[in-house]
Amino acid sequence: MTDASPFISQALGLAAQALFLSNPNPRVGCVITSDAGAVLGQGFTQQAGGPHAEVMALRDAAARGNDVRGATAYVTLEPCAHQGRTGPCCDALIQAGIARVVASVADPNPLVAGQGFARLRAAGVAVEAGPGAAETRELNIGFFSRMVRGMPWVRMKAAASLDGVTALGNGASQWITSPAARADGHAWRARACAVLSGIGTVLEDDPLLNVREVATPRQPHLVIVDSRLQTPPGARLFDVADRQVLIYAAQGEAQAAEALRARGATVVVLPNARGKVDLPAMLRDLARRSVNELHVEAGHKLNGSFLREGLVDEMLLYQAPLLLGSGAHGLASWGPLQALSDGVRMEFHSVRQIGPDLRVVARVAGRADF
Amino acid sequence: MTDASPFISQALGLAAQALFLSNPNPRVGCVITSDAGAVLGQGFTQQAGGPHAEVMALRDAAARGNDVRGATAYVTLEPCAHQGRTGPCCDALIQAGIARVVASVADPNPLVAGQGFARLRAAGVAVEAGPGAAETRELNIGFFSRMVRGMPWVRMKAAASLDGVTALGNGASQWITSPAARADGHAWRARACAVLSGIGTVLEDDPLLNVREVATPRQPHLVIVDSRLQTPPGARLFDVADRQVLIYAAQGEAQAAEALRARGATVVVLPNARGKVDLPAMLRDLARRSVNELHVEAGHKLNGSFLREGLVDEMLLYQAPLLLGSGAHGLASWGPLQALSDGVRMEFHSVRQIGPDLRVVARVAGRADF
Repeated sequence: MTDASPFISQALGLAAQALFLSNPNPRVGCVITSDAGAVLGQGFTQQAGGPHAEVMALRDAAARGNDVRGATAYVTLEPCAHQGRTGPCCDALIQAGIARVVASVADPNPLVAGQGFARLRAAGVAVEAGPGAAETRELNIGFFSRMVRGMPWVRMKAAASLDGVTALGNGASQWITSPAARADGHAWRARACAVLSGIGTVLEDDPLLNVREVATPRQPHLVIVDSRLQTPPGARLFDVADRQVLIYAAQGEAQAAEALRARGATVVVLPNARGKVDLPAMLRDLARRSVNELHVEAGHKLNGSFLREGLVDEMLLYQAPLLLGSGAHGLASWGPLQALSDGVRMEFHSVRQIGPDLRVVARVAGRADF
Repeated sequence: MTDASPFISQALGLAAQALFLSNPNPRVGCVITSDAGAVLGQGFTQQAGGPHAEVMALRDAAARGNDVRGATAYVTLEPCAHQGRTGPCCDALIQAGIARVVASVADPNPLVAGQGFARLRAAGVAVEAGPGAAETRELNIGFFSRMVRGMPWVRMKAAASLDGVTALGNGASQWITSPAARADGHAWRARACAVLSGIGTVLEDDPLLNVREVATPRQPHLVIVDSRLQTPPGARLFDVADRQVLIYAAQGEAQAAEALRARGATVVVLPNARGKVDLPAMLRDLARRSVNELHVEAGHKLNGSFLREGLVDEMLLYQAPLLLGSGAHGLASWGPLQALSDGVRMEFHSVRQIGPDLRVVARVAGRADF
C-alpha cells in the first residue's frame, strides 16, 4: 500500500489538461499503479461524448502492455455508474480487474453520489475517498455548482484602470489592458461552457466573443441577453462555427426571432415583471443546458444588473497600472448605494501580475460554500 | 578578504531599522568585521542630530571590547565628509583605524558625492563601492529624490473598493478597508517626512493625520494645502505634539495667518496664476525644508490636481474586495480625458494582501529614474 498523495497529485495534473476540452463533463484525471507503485497507465477526460479519464488510463495501460489486474486506480472524481454517451466507468474498472480505487470526491450530483462507489464495492473493489477533494472541487467549480445549486458558476470578467475606469466618457476603451492580459482573458473564456454578453455590446462593438488568443479544441457557446431581440441577423457573432448561440429575450417578436433562428440561434423568451430578461430564470435554464462556468463579459449596465440581483459568484478583473480620473464608465453601474454594507462583499481568491497588468480573482463571500 | 554581500545584506537590514527614525537623514546601516569575518560592531543611523550608522557601529564595537584597527566597515551609503550636527563619519572611521570601507553607493547629492570616498582614500583607507546600491536607493528613495531632483518623493495613498469607489454619493466612506489596511497605512505615514492633506479633508473630517496605529519614535510633519487659509485654529490637527504644521496658501490674509501662527503653524503663501497654491513650488519648498518622502492623503479633488500636474511619483492603493457600483467618488477627479494616452501610466511595484484587502504600490513609469 503506497501513499495516495503523489498519485492523486499526478491525477489532478492530468485533470487540469481537460480544462478547455471536456466541457460540460468534469475535468477528471486517472492514474493506475501497481502495488509496487509503478505507473501502469494514465489519462484524462476527453471531449463530451469521448472517453472518461478511467477508460483513457485503462487504454493507456493496455497500449503499454501493462497488466492492471490487482492494480490501484487513483481518480479525481467518483467513477460514474450510469450509462451516458459512454459506458459506466465502474464497469470498465471492474472488468479490467482493478482491485482498489482511491477517488478524491464523490459525484456532486446528490441523486447519483455514492452509486459508483457502491457498484465498485459490490464487485469486491476496495474504495477510499478524500485525497484531493478540495482541488477537484476547485477545478470543477462550475460542474459542482450546476450539480449542487442547479446554477452555473458565474464569473464576471472586466478590465479597468487602477481607479476603476473601464471606458472614457467619449467611449474610448480599447485597449486599457495589455495583449498579455487579453490573451489570459481568452484562456478564461476557453475554460467556460459559455460566454455571455448583452445587446449593448453587440450593437456597439459587433464582437465575435470567441476564443482567439489561445489554442482551444472547442469554442464556448455564446449567450446574448437581448430583451427586445435587437441582435442583427448579420452580426459577426454568427460567423463563428461550432458553437451554439443562445439569445435570451423578454419578448419574442416572431419575425425577429425567426430571422435569428435562421442564423442558427436558439431564442428563449424569459421575461420578468419589468419587461426585461429574467436573469435568475436564464441561469437556471443555462444550467439545464449543461452550462458549468458562465463567463460574463458585458457592459456596465448588464454587469450592474447581474450584481444588483446577486447573481455574480466571482470577479475576474484585469487592472492596468493606469489612472484615468473620473467622468467615465465604471465596471458596473447600479445604485446609488446608501451604505457600504449594501455593496457586494467579496474575498480575494488569487492575485497575479500578467504582463504589465494585474489579474485579480475575487469571490463573493461565502458563495463557493455550496 | 571576504565576500561583501552577506555583510552588506546585514547592513541593509540594520538600515531598515531606521525607517521611522532617522528622517530627514538617510536610512543607513553599518557592520564592522575583522579580516576573518567576525562581526566586531554594528549600528544604524539614529534620529536627526543623533549619531550616524558608522559611529553607532564603532561605539558598539567599543562597548563589546573589540579592536577595530585594520577592520573592514560595510556601510550602505558613502560616509559623510562634512560637519553637520554630528562630526564627519569619515574622520571617525579613520581615527578608529578602519583599513577598508565597502559602501553600497555614493552620496546622491551631486555637490558632495565622492568627497567621503576621497577623504578616506587620502587617509590610506581602501574603498570599494557598489554592492547593495539598488537596495539602498530604494530604501532611501525620498532622500535620493530630494538630493537629485530637489523634490520630495510624492506617494499618494488612497483606499477604494475594487471598482475604484472611495466614497458613496452620500459621503459614506468609513471604513472601506480593514483595520489591518489602516494600520499598514499608518506605517507608511510613519516612514514619511511629512503627511499632506487638503483643506477639504480638514473641514469635512477634522482629522489628526498623525501616526497612531503603529509605534513610532517620531511623528511626520503635517502639510495642509489651504488656498484661502480656512483652516480653523481650533482644528484637532493642532493637538498633535512634536510635529511641524505647514500651511500652504494662495493668499495670506493677515488675521487668519496670525491665528494659525499662534497655534504653531508655519504659513507659506505660494499662489499660482489661477489663485490656487502653486503645487510644484510647494514641493520644491518642502524639499528645501528637508522633506524626503511626502505622503499625500487627500480628497479626490486635491488628488486630481496632483495627478493633473504630474506631481505624483507613486500610488499606495488599498483595495477592499468590495464592489460599490457607480454614482460615487473615485480616488482622483480630473479630466474628462479624451484619450487613454492622457491617463497617468504607471508600473506595478509591489502587490500584497493585507488582511482581507489588497495593497498595491504602483509607480509612474520612468519616474524613479533620476
